[in-house]
Amino acid sequence: MCNLTTRDLAALVGGELRGRGDRIIDDVAGLDDATGAQVTFLEAAAAETHRKTAAGAVILAAENVSALGDTPDADLIIAAAPLDAFITAMLHFRPPSPTSNVGRSPLARISPTATIGAGCQIFPGATIQHDVVLGDRCVIHPGVVIGPGCRIGNDTTIHANAVLYSGVTLGERVIVHATAVIGADGFGYRFREGRFVRIPHTGTVRIEDDVEIGAGTTIDRAMIGATVIGAGTKLDNQVMIAHNCRIGKHNAFASQVGLAGSVTTGDYVRCGGQVGVADHAHLGTGSSIGGKAGVHGRVPDGEEYHGYPAGPAKEQYRIVMAVQRAPEMRRQIRDLEKQLARLQSQLTSLLGTAEGLRSSAPAA
Amino acid sequence: MCNLTTRDLAALVGGELRGRGDRIIDDVAGLDDATGAQVTFLEAAAAETHRKTAAGAVILAAENVSALGDTPDADLIIAAAPLDAFITAMLHFRPPSPTSNVGRSPLARISPTATIGAGCQIFPGATIQHDVVLGDRCVIHPGVVIGPGCRIGNDTTIHANAVLYSGVTLGERVIVHATAVIGADGFGYRFREGRFVRIPHTGTVRIEDDVEIGAGTTIDRAMIGATVIGAGTKLDNQVMIAHNCRIGKHNAFASQVGLAGSVTTGDYVRCGGQVGVADHAHLGTGSSIGGKAGVHGRVPDGEEYHGYPAGPAKEQYRIVMAVQRAPEMRRQIRDLEKQLARLQSQLTSLLGTAEGLRSSAPAA
Amino acid sequence: MCNLTTRDLAALVGGELRGRGDRIIDDVAGLDDATGAQVTFLEAAAAETHRKTAAGAVILAAENVSALGDTPDADLIIAAAPLDAFITAMLHFRPPSPTSNVGRSPLARISPTATIGAGCQIFPGATIQHDVVLGDRCVIHPGVVIGPGCRIGNDTTIHANAVLYSGVTLGERVIVHATAVIGADGFGYRFREGRFVRIPHTGTVRIEDDVEIGAGTTIDRAMIGATVIGAGTKLDNQVMIAHNCRIGKHNAFASQVGLAGSVTTGDYVRCGGQVGVADHAHLGTGSSIGGKAGVHGRVPDGEEYHGYPAGPAKEQYRIVMAVQRAPEMRRQIRDLEKQLARLQSQLTSLLGTAEGLRSSAPAA
Repeated sequence: MCNLTTRDLAALVGGELRGRGDRIIDDVAGLDDATGAQVTFLEAAAAETHRKTAAGAVILAAENVSALGDTPDADLIIAAAPLDAFITAMLHFRPPSPTSNVGRSPLARISPTATIGAGCQIFPGATIQHDVVLGDRCVIHPGVVIGPGCRIGNDTTIHANAVLYSGVTLGERVIVHATAVIGADGFGYRFREGRFVRIPHTGTVRIEDDVEIGAGTTIDRAMIGATVIGAGTKLDNQVMIAHNCRIGKHNAFASQVGLAGSVTTGDYVRCGGQVGVADHAHLGTGSSIGGKAGVHGRVPDGEEYHGYPAGPAKEQYRIVMAVQRAPEMRRQIRDLEKQLARLQSQLTSLLGTAEGLRSSAPAA
Repeated sequence: MCNLTTRDLAALVGGELRGRGDRIIDDVAGLDDATGAQVTFLEAAAAETHRKTAAGAVILAAENVSALGDTPDADLIIAAAPLDAFITAMLHFRPPSPTSNVGRSPLARISPTATIGAGCQIFPGATIQHDVVLGDRCVIHPGVVIGPGCRIGNDTTIHANAVLYSGVTLGERVIVHATAVIGADGFGYRFREGRFVRIPHTGTVRIEDDVEIGAGTTIDRAMIGATVIGAGTKLDNQVMIAHNCRIGKHNAFASQVGLAGSVTTGDYVRCGGQVGVADHAHLGTGSSIGGKAGVHGRVPDGEEYHGYPAGPAKEQYRIVMAVQRAPEMRRQIRDLEKQLARLQSQLTSLLGTAEGLRSSAPAA
Repeated sequence: MCNLTTRDLAALVGGELRGRGDRIIDDVAGLDDATGAQVTFLEAAAAETHRKTAAGAVILAAENVSALGDTPDADLIIAAAPLDAFITAMLHFRPPSPTSNVGRSPLARISPTATIGAGCQIFPGATIQHDVVLGDRCVIHPGVVIGPGCRIGNDTTIHANAVLYSGVTLGERVIVHATAVIGADGFGYRFREGRFVRIPHTGTVRIEDDVEIGAGTTIDRAMIGATVIGAGTKLDNQVMIAHNCRIGKHNAFASQVGLAGSVTTGDYVRCGGQVGVADHAHLGTGSSIGGKAGVHGRVPDGEEYHGYPAGPAKEQYRIVMAVQRAPEMRRQIRDLEKQLARLQSQLTSLLGTAEGLRSSAPAA
């Protein structure tokens, strides 16, 4: 790669150097793994627990300098946005390797009726079926299958062995990771005479610009219209989006999230891992669903929901805290019952006494 | 496609026309998306919330007509089974595109020892290994890998990049969606001298007639006999069926359901999304498991189970309701404790008084 | 195959024969499925419930003989480790079929810059990109895609349609099942000006020796260093391992387990199906996580954790038991409140009486 002094590195990332400035850095590394010729970075969250690193340079925020002690071994590079600065350094030392220039490989199976844009890289072993329209500069990796009539925007990348069923639309700058499946038939049946009869799914899937779709994620086609993934939305691996869902813009779903049919979401919605959402539910704009939660109905805009069945995070927190005490509550209830019984018996006996006293009292 | 007047459309779907009858319809659409040249349908469930549509025609049940108001803009088509009628319309306007007539593609890799039935479509890039027997009219999409010795019935379709390990059996009219994996080794090990030693899985998987298997679903082979999926059963995407499971007929499992080893189910069992079932559990005929439930042991025939650990739905509902009140219960218990203490102290002081009274009472 | 008398079979598996010894056995079968020419085995766990089999021979432990009744129909083969003995029998009757000797198929797409070890089987339709280094005796099935610069140890098998992104390292004797994806970009973004901006993931994945990776499992690459799967660890199907996780040696994760970013585990950790682990959590050496549990923070070495949020199994068991009683607890609390009110009113009235008595008492 291209080595840099810590002085030049600080300049490159727009940071302020504290230290010698003449150390030679040749790569990036994590805080725990870094050696003297590497630059690392200190996140705010890590500043409390990590105080040692063997790195030659550390990119960090001014307020976290003290975390490294009085005389840090490393040159420090103070940056307002340490992660951004670190990424600049990373891309210097590890420039993205250019995609192999395979062009339109003769070993790809491309239908003569497909339209292929300029500058595409279509790898050996990719399949592009009839009437597909592919934008410019797309990268189609080996084993990808693009079904008849799909339309794919410019600068979109589809990784190995991903599958698009027929008639699916992808926007620009979309990334589809390996083995993702877009446009399989929705899971819809009529139950007739003791058996399930498939409901034909003649709709499609529409993926808008700048969407990223994780490895193994599946997005089913709608029955009539379109299952939609809004612009800028990011889906992690092994996410399931059922037929007729309409996902807003700039959502982020962690891995193994599952949405049943006809779920809708606003913009800027976040779901933690393994969240499940029941059919026809709605997640409001800016809402956030905690990992493993199970959602029915409507989540209001901006709300944070947790738990199963999911509810507002603060309430759920109180419920969880109380549930942890449930065994104690059972004991307390048993104690109360005993005390109450004792009290009752004392009182009963006292009532007898009082009655005796009253009857034996001198007439007023 | 083939335009129809609403009069002709009503006749086609076997419905009763209410309206002008001369509107021209050229496609189907959802209630919210439809325009004047499209027919939509109103489900019973939607009748309460949807009262407006711009569709030119609406297929619906007689009892839901009032949902559209006194003077609906659309021609109405009254049908006893609106969904069935709508599907008839959909298939008229959107006839299934015929599978490409690729025949036995020379770009498919077909072992010379494989037996291929009449009328099969085997796409370029499919792999059919030695001793495979394929029925008539099967469709094998690109990237599919069918391992040695698999036997596949007539009219079965396997979508792109699905994988069958060796020796797996598929019935007739089976649909396997993209990237599904059937027959991988079960997850079974012996723990010997500090390490896991694989238990060989020499069994197989048997998929009966009319089964549908979702994208990304995995079904492992048995150790000795067969993992079985009964006739007519439908598995959604990303379902996991472990080794030695025996699934009955006409089950329906939503996406991301996971069954551990040796689970058995009766017929007509339904599982909601993300259900987990522990090894050796049994789901009785006609039972229904709510989304995200976790099942151990036996679910009786016909029962609805929810929750984790799963139990009868009504009980679980009461438990969930009570758990929501757990923080309130904690407060109530604390209040009771306080009240009880106060009562106890009142009583104690009263006992003192009574004692005093008794001792000062005149001798009877 | 190769038939054996029960006498010879007992000798083969190192067991003690009880019975005639001259029955002819030609295959293995499960307890319920076995017929007279087959050998089965009785597990300790099954000994309580299974007492009948039509098998010609049963391998079992001495202490379970009585489970088969006084006069079992089968010849018995007493073995100290019945499963091991049974596997020996199974491998006799069902020897593993040799991998097809395809060598380095001309229909595989192998980069001229790849280095391929001796004795590899590279199937038609496999893709090996530039600068890959493959050890000896590896088996690469159809549709597998191995990205640029991957390094793969001896005797490693990669099943159909699995995908390795660039620069991934696999050890020796690793098994990767069909459609697994190793090395996709981690799910990491910066949120800038209302949109997610991808954090480049320039790290890698390192899979150590003797690891097995299930079908559909996904393991993301690290941002800088490596996502690591320790030697001997076994991952079932549809497991998700996010970026920067470091999994110890000899872990076993059941299907659909999901680990968020930067999770670490010790050695000999076990996770049940559908477990979710939050980012930066740690599972201590020898810990065991129950199915469907949700883990945050640290699980101490050797602990068994259940539930969501996960806690020590014994505590969780008490909590679950108490939660099942939550509806009853609500009733008990209501009863207590009523009894207390009654008591209070009795006491209040008694206080009045006592006051009356006191005031009417003769002066002491």
